[in-house]
Amino acid sequence: MSTDRTRTRRHAERAHDDRATLDAILDAGVVAYVGVVDDGQPFVIPMAYARDGDRLLLHGSTASRLMRLLAAGAPACVSVTHLDGIVVARSAFESSMQYRSAMILGRCRPAPDHDVALARITDGLLPGRWDEARPMRTREAAATSIVELDIKEWSVKVSTDGPGDPPEDRGTDVWAGVLPVRTVIGEPVPDHDVPAAVAIPRSVEERVRRGLG
Amino acid sequence: MSTDRTRTRRHAERAHDDRATLDAILDAGVVAYVGVVDDGQPFVIPMAYARDGDRLLLHGSTASRLMRLLAAGAPACVSVTHLDGIVVARSAFESSMQYRSAMILGRCRPAPDHDVALARITDGLLPGRWDEARPMRTREAAATSIVELDIKEWSVKVSTDGPGDPPEDRGTDVWAGVLPVRTVIGEPVPDHDVPAAVAIPRSVEERVRRGLG
Repeated sequence: MSTDRTRTRRHAERAHDDRATLDAILDAGVVAYVGVVDDGQPFVIPMAYARDGDRLLLHGSTASRLMRLLAAGAPACVSVTHLDGIVVARSAFESSMQYRSAMILGRCRPAPDHDVALARITDGLLPGRWDEARPMRTREAAATSIVELDIKEWSVKVSTDGPGDPPEDRGTDVWAGVLPVRTVIGEPVPDHDVPAAVAIPRSVEERVRRGLG
Repeated sequence: MSTDRTRTRRHAERAHDDRATLDAILDAGVVAYVGVVDDGQPFVIPMAYARDGDRLLLHGSTASRLMRLLAAGAPACVSVTHLDGIVVARSAFESSMQYRSAMILGRCRPAPDHDVALARITDGLLPGRWDEARPMRTREAAATSIVELDIKEWSVKVSTDGPGDPPEDRGTDVWAGVLPVRTVIGEPVPDHDVPAAVAIPRSVEERVRRGLG
């Protein structure tokens, strides 16, 4: 969270340069915020994504103007952040957030292995879903644009610290602490016309098991 | 979610033009994704925010380069999205997300009423916290940049529908349904040196009561 870079860096924020931290942050989410510029105006679009090794896959409609900009290689920024807590300090100034945040910069291109990429992004959202789902039709594949972004230029920031109040603020009657924040997946709700004999599939069980965020 | 604009628009996605929907989406969150362009490169930064009437307040450090760009009036885009569910259709193509998403475009400027804005954004994160917290010092206020963005050019999209499978895919043994997703706030954790007699304050209780997302 760049609420206050100077402050958080002083006592809480850590910039990580290890790829494992980046991968863990990316693999924990399903929605990325993708920035792209159209005629000088930035747009930030929430998009479903999945990491596939050293690339990030993003998918959208071939009819989307911003997707076309991405596919054409416009400079892009992909941001994925998990909010882990609201840090309540004695002062408003020291209050902050706990989070894990990743940013990738670069230029996208259409995934050269379109069908493989479709399977990978589907399985990224729901592990193993590609083989469970009704096979994709040619016209469906053609209507889905998948772009890939190399995971090459990236940064990660993680903040796990509690209130960073200076000594003079401590021991007063002002409460301080952390409000933990989590993203949870509830009980899967079957569609109304799923036959009773059809059990919840493994892909859904696996997504629930892995959780989100 | 712009996973597939054509598809979701067909059966699920609704563009809202009522301001009440926008306000509800904004008021349910604490982290916005702010897009700004620096020398042709878009950046997407997660930032704490709060709505104050017809303006959005964003805060950061006066030392942050991107914050200075925002304060200088560079074109900006603020995106706030709440993920409500993963929609599992019989086909990968029809699978999608349930969400509430808001986007605001415009140019920020430093909040002209800096101290009022500091109180408003603090109370936006934790309702009533400004009056509970140790009063802000002059140097702290000076080190915190608050920008405001008029809520004038905006759009909202909400998708609440389940699987949109066509009739020919229904009644098969492929499971379909929705995985509900929620953001939850756990039990507040007091800092290690908060005296036992200091109760959890109303601002924290109120944030827990209102929830997130």
